[in-house]
Amino acid sequence: MKKAVCIISGGMDSALTAFIAKKAGYEIIALHFNYAQRTERKELECFEKISAALGAKKVVFDTHFFKDIGASSLTDTSLCVRTGGVEEGVPNTYVPYRNGIFISIAASLAEKEGAEALYLGVIEEDSSGYPDCTEAFIKKIEAAVNEGTKKQTSIQIRTPLVHLTKEDIVKEALKLGVPLELTWSCYTNEDKACGVCDSCRLRLRGFEGAKIKDKIPYM
Amino acid sequence: MKKAVCIISGGMDSALTAFIAKKAGYEIIALHFNYAQRTERKELECFEKISAALGAKKVVFDTHFFKDIGASSLTDTSLCVRTGGVEEGVPNTYVPYRNGIFISIAASLAEKEGAEALYLGVIEEDSSGYPDCTEAFIKKIEAAVNEGTKKQTSIQIRTPLVHLTKEDIVKEALKLGVPLELTWSCYTNEDKACGVCDSCRLRLRGFEGAKIKDKIPYM
Repeated sequence: MKKAVCIISGGMDSALTAFIAKKAGYEIIALHFNYAQRTERKELECFEKISAALGAKKVVFDTHFFKDIGASSLTDTSLCVRTGGVEEGVPNTYVPYRNGIFISIAASLAEKEGAEALYLGVIEEDSSGYPDCTEAFIKKIEAAVNEGTKKQTSIQIRTPLVHLTKEDIVKEALKLGVPLELTWSCYTNEDKACGVCDSCRLRLRGFEGAKIKDKIPYM
Repeated sequence: MKKAVCIISGGMDSALTAFIAKKAGYEIIALHFNYAQRTERKELECFEKISAALGAKKVVFDTHFFKDIGASSLTDTSLCVRTGGVEEGVPNTYVPYRNGIFISIAASLAEKEGAEALYLGVIEEDSSGYPDCTEAFIKKIEAAVNEGTKKQTSIQIRTPLVHLTKEDIVKEALKLGVPLELTWSCYTNEDKACGVCDSCRLRLRGFEGAKIKDKIPYM
């Protein structure tokens, strides 16, 4: 059976992405990064449940060096996560080149496992303005990955959500039976979502657009 | 003062590369990866001494997930490091996409620090046949890094040794006053170098070609 490495954060986007990979017939290797972000405990719990729902092989990598790099309100708790509303530009939740690092580590695992695809749930258009979530970036890192691995290794990087909106994502997730109630998006809280950070706002906007009730608890 | 992140393993190539960066006028941020390889204790010791000689700011990141990935005789001690001589093809010391991961993490640090250059000591021609040590790979990952970071971030990836031989490297190191006696190359031993792994053979070939005595202890 052909294999795919799916990066799963615990959020909606990566959960849907992994369900799309599963539907495409892949054996799923679910990969989660613990990068000492604010809500890691909750995200790991969601990753475990989503992976179980997928019947996936689970891999968790410790990447605490992100905390040493810092420079993001997700990994440096002396910085505040903004709650005033989604704005243009790169927000301070941006973790420098995070997806470049995630993809590179996932590519290493994919090469070792003989996986032919690497799925991740980046979205470009209806997102927070991160430079490492664009299709242009994915194309370039895919070229680098295939140049820098063995000749017989060929890894396709698939981002099926890249041009979807959050509303599309909620609707598509419902169609595929993705258990959205097991996912977590809030940047700051682990028990009741704050509802006002960018990530909560984008999630809620998605549910509202899809005319669906979000079943996770909010403050 | 303009800054450069220099990846320093503890070996000759990265030490010379960092001295070249220093000579080019950069303030050096010396970055070492502990990836649980066989000779990490010795490599870290060499990194410390080389960084001190450079007057560099030191950063060490724990990347033990490489051991979980395995698939290399450097990180999986159940595999043997070959000692019969350098051959064509990718040897089992290859750590899947290692330099892709190193460069991605270094790029994140460079973006945070506002460094404009990232130096690493890959050599393509007189080396062990690793796919992540070629100029073609470096060009592609440089494009990915600059696409996936902020618009105002611009990071040049510099590999001044990429087309040198080990003999050139020994000669150039002597010219620049690089303390080669503080560097370590052996893949297997930490006290006396084995002299027969690929890395020792390439090092010794370099000293022999340059007609210089290597001062580190051998078995």
